[in-house]
Amino acid sequence: MRYKGLIENPSVAYRHRKVLVTGGLGFIGSNVAVRLAEAGAQVTVVDSSVPGCGANSYNLAQAPGVRVIHADIRDSGALAGELLGVDFVFNLAGEISHVHSMQNPSRDADLNATAQLHFLEECSRQAPGRRIVYASTRQIYGVPQYLPVDEQHPVRPVDFNGVHKYAATVYHQLWTEMGRLDARILCLTNVYGPRMALNVPGQGFLGHFLRVGLLGETIRIFGDGRQLRDPVYVDDVVDAFLMAGAADNPPRRLWNVGGAAALPLATIAETIARVAGAPAPVYQPFPPEHKTIDIGSYSTDSSRIRKDLGWRPTIPFEEGIRRTVQYFGPELPHYLSRCAVMATRRS
Amino acid sequence: MRYKGLIENPSVAYRHRKVLVTGGLGFIGSNVAVRLAEAGAQVTVVDSSVPGCGANSYNLAQAPGVRVIHADIRDSGALAGELLGVDFVFNLAGEISHVHSMQNPSRDADLNATAQLHFLEECSRQAPGRRIVYASTRQIYGVPQYLPVDEQHPVRPVDFNGVHKYAATVYHQLWTEMGRLDARILCLTNVYGPRMALNVPGQGFLGHFLRVGLLGETIRIFGDGRQLRDPVYVDDVVDAFLMAGAADNPPRRLWNVGGAAALPLATIAETIARVAGAPAPVYQPFPPEHKTIDIGSYSTDSSRIRKDLGWRPTIPFEEGIRRTVQYFGPELPHYLSRCAVMATRRS
Repeated sequence: MRYKGLIENPSVAYRHRKVLVTGGLGFIGSNVAVRLAEAGAQVTVVDSSVPGCGANSYNLAQAPGVRVIHADIRDSGALAGELLGVDFVFNLAGEISHVHSMQNPSRDADLNATAQLHFLEECSRQAPGRRIVYASTRQIYGVPQYLPVDEQHPVRPVDFNGVHKYAATVYHQLWTEMGRLDARILCLTNVYGPRMALNVPGQGFLGHFLRVGLLGETIRIFGDGRQLRDPVYVDDVVDAFLMAGAADNPPRRLWNVGGAAALPLATIAETIARVAGAPAPVYQPFPPEHKTIDIGSYSTDSSRIRKDLGWRPTIPFEEGIRRTVQYFGPELPHYLSRCAVMATRRS
Repeated sequence: MRYKGLIENPSVAYRHRKVLVTGGLGFIGSNVAVRLAEAGAQVTVVDSSVPGCGANSYNLAQAPGVRVIHADIRDSGALAGELLGVDFVFNLAGEISHVHSMQNPSRDADLNATAQLHFLEECSRQAPGRRIVYASTRQIYGVPQYLPVDEQHPVRPVDFNGVHKYAATVYHQLWTEMGRLDARILCLTNVYGPRMALNVPGQGFLGHFLRVGLLGETIRIFGDGRQLRDPVYVDDVVDAFLMAGAADNPPRRLWNVGGAAALPLATIAETIARVAGAPAPVYQPFPPEHKTIDIGSYSTDSSRIRKDLGWRPTIPFEEGIRRTVQYFGPELPHYLSRCAVMATRRS
């Protein structure tokens, strides 16, 4: 099969197709599920709502066509019927928190490495050769040795989350090299947008900034706010997932996915505060537990995915924040519920 | 504490010290244990004799001073008393087989990653800040992008064993960065010598060549025999372990450890056959299950450990093979026992 070239409208590939989304109650997973349902796919979400990982059943409340199975991705019994005959798997189950991983490395190993190992074995048994798009992370690269970071950048994770996400990344590659699955991998930078887990600590600074700003409180920035990040709007990321899944025989199978612009944290915070109508941000020293895993500035070289699939970020940061604030306006109570807080405390 | 410079006689550091050797019934682990006992250390070996991993209780039969605890390194109950007050840990427990890892990835994850994660947590709790020397592997680098391979070479494991050994390597680094252990890591090339697991399939080509040669049979080489390897004699590797453990505040904590010369497989096989008095080797095509994970030629740049610790390989290959053949002459039955074969079959 030859490579079909750039993907102009990936949605058509999914019409009437059977698609499984792991971690589909989470932030990015639910956005992927919603878009797939809109594209006419038969979408099943698998999510075990592990406390602290950001699942929120409200994320799919307005997506009635999506079936939700409350199961762990290791539960081959619960998944058996779902994997048989599945056309695509979007694999977003996991824990994204650096901080949680340093507090409890075994939990992170279990959720991000062991669980994926079992899931991929089951996939390759029940749905051999099937396409699977995995949500990996820029964290596998660790502290950038140069900017922007491309796919040739050395792998050097600086926390447990990074090493376990890297292990799962290699698992996807190995099953593909063995000819037992057809995996594609996206190494995501900081993603933001509707359905973010605003009230789950340790899910990244963007959700934290947004929560504080949406509550009309003052965003506190650790350090001088000069570190760069290249936030990418979730709709753009969903495009990347759909393009990665739709590509026939792509020339490469791992792509970095980043935002259009590298912005100082100060600019990011000021934009959020301004759009949300919150007070101007203030600055304070890094707390010690964050300093350990601070990686300085980061920005993504997304030219490979642009070249291979035609993907590029389309939503400027301020516009993305405007849409995000607009989404959360009426929905905020569903993302600040006491339930979410309690779930986190149990983790 | 300042770095004390090159280690001329590492043995003195271990006299009357309490030392734990994990995987100490295995090939390299038992050689480390024997040398430490000779140096006057109080040596305790922990080994659970996992079938297929190369443990052989005969390896310590002539080392009466060494205590052996038959326990899994995850068994914190069994280890509790041993870790309290320990001065050094030599951490060699694990499964080294590429082939086994491709046949059963979960088993490899369990033995090489999860077990190490639990063990390091327990070490850091019971023996905080303690020195630990970990046996990592050249496999973390995957297919060499250049030769000889130094420590800056990109990490790109090509099998499950490589990714799990890499995860455990990073675990050691992270616990050290958190200030909870003082780990040093050796990335070993192919090691050979007395106490090798000759009769355990999947433990590398050197043990296989030696077993066939020692039985007077014909060594069969896969491919044309031109791939390079730089075998290193186990006594040299034991030196590296003792030096790495003895160094106060070394400038780096991860070192590649390789042999003095990169030799074609054909030369390696011919040397073994000649010294062992076996027929000349023959050549045959690569079997498919090996081809997947063949990495071509490999040779090690050991200049960092030479610079930091003063280590260098001292035993030329032919001399090492002579000593190995001499060791196994009277001992061969203990390394070809039916027991070892059966244990392997159960794996």
